[in-house]
Amino acid sequence: MSRFWNQRTLALKPYVPGEQPKEKMIKLNTNENPYPPSDRVQQAMKEAADDRMRLYPDPDASALRQTFAEYVGVDEKNVFVGNGSDEVLSFAFDAFFPEDKPVLFPDVTYSFYPVYCAHLGLTYQTVPLREDFTIDPADYVGEIGGIVIANPNAPTGIALSLDEIEIILKNNPDCAVVIDEAYVRFGAESAVQLIDRYPNLLVVQTMSKSHALAGLRVGFAVGSAELIEGLNRVKNAFNSYPVDRIAQAGAIASLQDVEIIDANLNTIRATREGVSVALRGIGFDVLPSSSNFIMIRYWNCPAKTLFDHLREKKILVRYFDLPRIDDYLRVTIGTKDEMRTFLDTVEDFIE
Amino acid sequence: MSRFWNQRTLALKPYVPGEQPKEKMIKLNTNENPYPPSDRVQQAMKEAADDRMRLYPDPDASALRQTFAEYVGVDEKNVFVGNGSDEVLSFAFDAFFPEDKPVLFPDVTYSFYPVYCAHLGLTYQTVPLREDFTIDPADYVGEIGGIVIANPNAPTGIALSLDEIEIILKNNPDCAVVIDEAYVRFGAESAVQLIDRYPNLLVVQTMSKSHALAGLRVGFAVGSAELIEGLNRVKNAFNSYPVDRIAQAGAIASLQDVEIIDANLNTIRATREGVSVALRGIGFDVLPSSSNFIMIRYWNCPAKTLFDHLREKKILVRYFDLPRIDDYLRVTIGTKDEMRTFLDTVEDFIE
Repeated sequence: MSRFWNQRTLALKPYVPGEQPKEKMIKLNTNENPYPPSDRVQQAMKEAADDRMRLYPDPDASALRQTFAEYVGVDEKNVFVGNGSDEVLSFAFDAFFPEDKPVLFPDVTYSFYPVYCAHLGLTYQTVPLREDFTIDPADYVGEIGGIVIANPNAPTGIALSLDEIEIILKNNPDCAVVIDEAYVRFGAESAVQLIDRYPNLLVVQTMSKSHALAGLRVGFAVGSAELIEGLNRVKNAFNSYPVDRIAQAGAIASLQDVEIIDANLNTIRATREGVSVALRGIGFDVLPSSSNFIMIRYWNCPAKTLFDHLREKKILVRYFDLPRIDDYLRVTIGTKDEMRTFLDTVEDFIE
Repeated sequence: MSRFWNQRTLALKPYVPGEQPKEKMIKLNTNENPYPPSDRVQQAMKEAADDRMRLYPDPDASALRQTFAEYVGVDEKNVFVGNGSDEVLSFAFDAFFPEDKPVLFPDVTYSFYPVYCAHLGLTYQTVPLREDFTIDPADYVGEIGGIVIANPNAPTGIALSLDEIEIILKNNPDCAVVIDEAYVRFGAESAVQLIDRYPNLLVVQTMSKSHALAGLRVGFAVGSAELIEGLNRVKNAFNSYPVDRIAQAGAIASLQDVEIIDANLNTIRATREGVSVALRGIGFDVLPSSSNFIMIRYWNCPAKTLFDHLREKKILVRYFDLPRIDDYLRVTIGTKDEMRTFLDTVEDFIE
């Protein structure tokens, strides 16, 4: 508290990110990719760290936007790049959502969305997920200022089909609909292919998860040229150069690293399925995940107790003290070895 | 224009940064440091580009804040780090300036300030510089929501003394006063030493200019713990991890690179004085600069004409089509060789 804070700052409830532990732990708490960027990608970042660092980066990140446009099969004018998808999402809320109608998103979803609204002076309305934690697209109707759907949703991991997303788009042609695809490559279908038909659709993606570059801070938006121009206006009223030289170079190399990335994604998906089967086999509820994490619940033990036990055994997972999900833990899919240790520890505990 | 933009986005007048030319030119237009980061700093960035890039960076950038705190002689709790000083400035406007009273800044100053105000829905009032482009501290009084002073000012290059800054602080104990010290190390005195006595003082610095890391995007704020906490609240309502892993590592190394940085600063200052004397010798007005750029005017030629001629000769400087300064050019101080070429080209032209 300070008398120098304005009303907005006083009212803020900042987002709290998952812990980055200083000690050595099996880290299954912030949905990072267990397989590091390849030597080729690391080399590209190293090579960018040269004399040119004295110069500002390309403010438009043209080469990176071009590379990403080809990667997802759109035109460069349909791509925006920012300092991680959190920044891109914030810009989208800032550019498109009006003050006089509520933003809609599920009651269980990425907990940054209500924080963006509070920061920007927007009202929002949460839409309850069904009992099984799925989204009912028919719920997203009415006097709406904007819609945000994470697909797959977080922290449930459950995906919507493209048909379901189209229902939301068709029902809401007059407001921006943001599909947050942070985890899409772990098992959901991307809505990028719909942007030509829906000028109000903005798809947000990130290099942090599927491309194992959480440490680099690069996120994208894909949408109609008019939406992308809106994001650029906000960016250029905030920070002309949000993406640094090394980030631009590393992200380009990673987008060209198709085989290695795809192989790692396959391994993570296979590990997720194996771990899910094993956990169900010992009595856990496991939500059907299309992501790189699973939401799990044990019938006979409070989630917080299991969380504390795992932490003691140097395994960090995520516990949310929030309505509807406070009896679940969210567990990131790590390497096979890490998940073997996780399963052994869980088995020992419930015995 | 788009029907999906909200009122704020429609009303924005985005900032336009200086050009980053694709072709090879002598680049004296965006106040970059002509001397690249040392091998040691480049090595630190390269080393950070390793397997750990799969992990999120430290959201608090603790090690970097600690290093910067020692560098400027304050406590870690008095330091905030962001993605370039543009982001830090935007957060400061966001956190501290109220909607019901105007923000004050000079009529000739960094042209991002009015853009921040428009973006955040703040009103502002510009205060005319004196005829000689100096700031009169006594002008900054009244019903004020906040004050921003670039010291040295840009694009004039003229510095205020600490005594003059103290007059502004003493006259305005109830609002935040932001001193933007992007260029301070080229010849002005830092107000960091005043933060203990003025809880409303926020000093903003950057690695882009004196530390030759414009390509890395690292900026700082120094102030009372309550101001720093306000900035953290805004940051955590926007993007938890604005400073990537390599940026944190490179900035730490650069802050430890004291001798090389200081030697380069001395060279730039000496070059500035030499160029200023030479230009005055051939009839130019040169404002007294404490920065790494000079504002120059020739009695017998429109600034735009000289700008165009220099551009044709592959020398890029900055021309502002703005009241009071549209007969000046802003010229960044480059290497001695670059400035020799610049002087030769100018001399040829006026002959």
